[in-house]
Amino acid sequence: MVDRIELSAQELAEQSAAAMWAHDAASQAMGMALDSVRPGYARLTMRVRDDMVNGHRICHGGFVFALADSAFAFACNSYGQTAVAQDCDIVFVAPVRLGDVLTAEAIERHRFGRNGIYDVTVRRDGEVVAEFRGRSRELRDRNG
Amino acid sequence: MVDRIELSAQELAEQSAAAMWAHDAASQAMGMALDSVRPGYARLTMRVRDDMVNGHRICHGGFVFALADSAFAFACNSYGQTAVAQDCDIVFVAPVRLGDVLTAEAIERHRFGRNGIYDVTVRRDGEVVAEFRGRSRELRDRNG
Amino acid sequence: MVDRIELSAQELAEQSAAAMWAHDAASQAMGMALDSVRPGYARLTMRVRDDMVNGHRICHGGFVFALADSAFAFACNSYGQTAVAQDCDIVFVAPVRLGDVLTAEAIERHRFGRNGIYDVTVRRDGEVVAEFRGRSRELRDRNG
Amino acid sequence: MVDRIELSAQELAEQSAAAMWAHDAASQAMGMALDSVRPGYARLTMRVRDDMVNGHRICHGGFVFALADSAFAFACNSYGQTAVAQDCDIVFVAPVRLGDVLTAEAIERHRFGRNGIYDVTVRRDGEVVAEFRGRSRELRDRNG
Repeated sequence: MVDRIELSAQELAEQSAAAMWAHDAASQAMGMALDSVRPGYARLTMRVRDDMVNGHRICHGGFVFALADSAFAFACNSYGQTAVAQDCDIVFVAPVRLGDVLTAEAIERHRFGRNGIYDVTVRRDGEVVAEFRGRSRELRDRNG
Repeated sequence: MVDRIELSAQELAEQSAAAMWAHDAASQAMGMALDSVRPGYARLTMRVRDDMVNGHRICHGGFVFALADSAFAFACNSYGQTAVAQDCDIVFVAPVRLGDVLTAEAIERHRFGRNGIYDVTVRRDGEVVAEFRGRSRELRDRNG
Repeated sequence: MVDRIELSAQELAEQSAAAMWAHDAASQAMGMALDSVRPGYARLTMRVRDDMVNGHRICHGGFVFALADSAFAFACNSYGQTAVAQDCDIVFVAPVRLGDVLTAEAIERHRFGRNGIYDVTVRRDGEVVAEFRGRSRELRDRNG
Repeated sequence: MVDRIELSAQELAEQSAAAMWAHDAASQAMGMALDSVRPGYARLTMRVRDDMVNGHRICHGGFVFALADSAFAFACNSYGQTAVAQDCDIVFVAPVRLGDVLTAEAIERHRFGRNGIYDVTVRRDGEVVAEFRGRSRELRDRNG
């Protein structure tokens, strides 16, 4: 008789990501795709559409941030514990243009207590376009 | 004989905002409205739509950031000099929900050389939901 | 019979500041002086000494940060609840030199739950030399 | 006949660091030691003295910041081009105490144009006590 199935860390990360993704209508509406997830790590991609740019075909910073923020959210929730963003900062390194395919890679820098620090790099064909750092906090109520 | 029409600071702010707004398809596509602009100041509003929320009807942080970032952009371009965002940080104070009408108010904190620091507060019915700080840099080429 | 003396908010701010100051050997060793404290507010001054500068007589950024951080600490502890710094960011606006007398003014921007956001401006003769923003968190154990 | 001695990147980093260190009276006065420098990298150590702590023997955040900021400065000046700190943020992870020996390791994250982003981790016996990120800007005048 098995009361509780023990998941490996990788299975837990994948299960958490699948549950989040099913609910994340906003990330889906922006055309994001979840490439990869591991404990403390997530990688997402997004193509810059014409409703994301201004008249000079430059992407609004909000969508570059949104991609990084989604990667951050998947990474900091990969331990099966619900975590929320507390604050984030982003450095805009290079302009992003209509049609660019962006990849955001979120890597855990440090976890301490219920807090986490995650670094997210957004790239276009390997070239860095933004550097993001987010701080997360786990909620007390578990979403097991 | 007048070669150049002298604009007041307020006329310049309004003219810069009108030119930006005409090109800012992304902010328009997100349903933002530009309420008010003055030198070093801008206020925008946005209603949270169902393509901006997750399955729990909570707004994706990227859209809260986008509204603040647009207010920042209008404020730091209000002097008739093209300025771009260098880096921004945002603290998420309270969850934002489907249907909420958000107001972002950008206020210049300090300008020095070609740099500017702007504080943006995002509110829902007067209640603070996010605090944003952005740093801008004026480009050398003037858009007079 | 009075079991507990009710303090006004201003008395509580002054009492908290006095208790902190008595213990704050580091701020004292840097020559700081506490000018003023109110609920959510503190102002400190410091003169830049020769052990704080480099060979070009420019102040090390750490001491400018330290002054702002102390002002932040006094402001966020002014409610009689022990609060600690979680994270801080600082923009260096102008170089600070040997002999400059700096004033750091910390103003509460927003409190929510156990969290606080404080803006600290560091000035020399009224001129801004740094802008600092700190986030605090109140500890659960009260220091009454 | 040799007009100009070509330095390797490593020699240039060491030479820049030696020139900076000779002038950096403030870092020396805080008892810092420069352990290691490479292009885009620096590591410094500092012992927490009794003039750096409060009455509870907890180190003032300004000194933790100062160590990180010095490591950042040595790293971003390691290319032989004078660079200055524009803005920095620090997350305080764990309290630091009297007598602790701290190590700050600054690693370049990204350089673009005259800008740089550096991540600095401060540790005590391998345990992280603070995470710092700094943004630098190279001055136009070369100190070649």
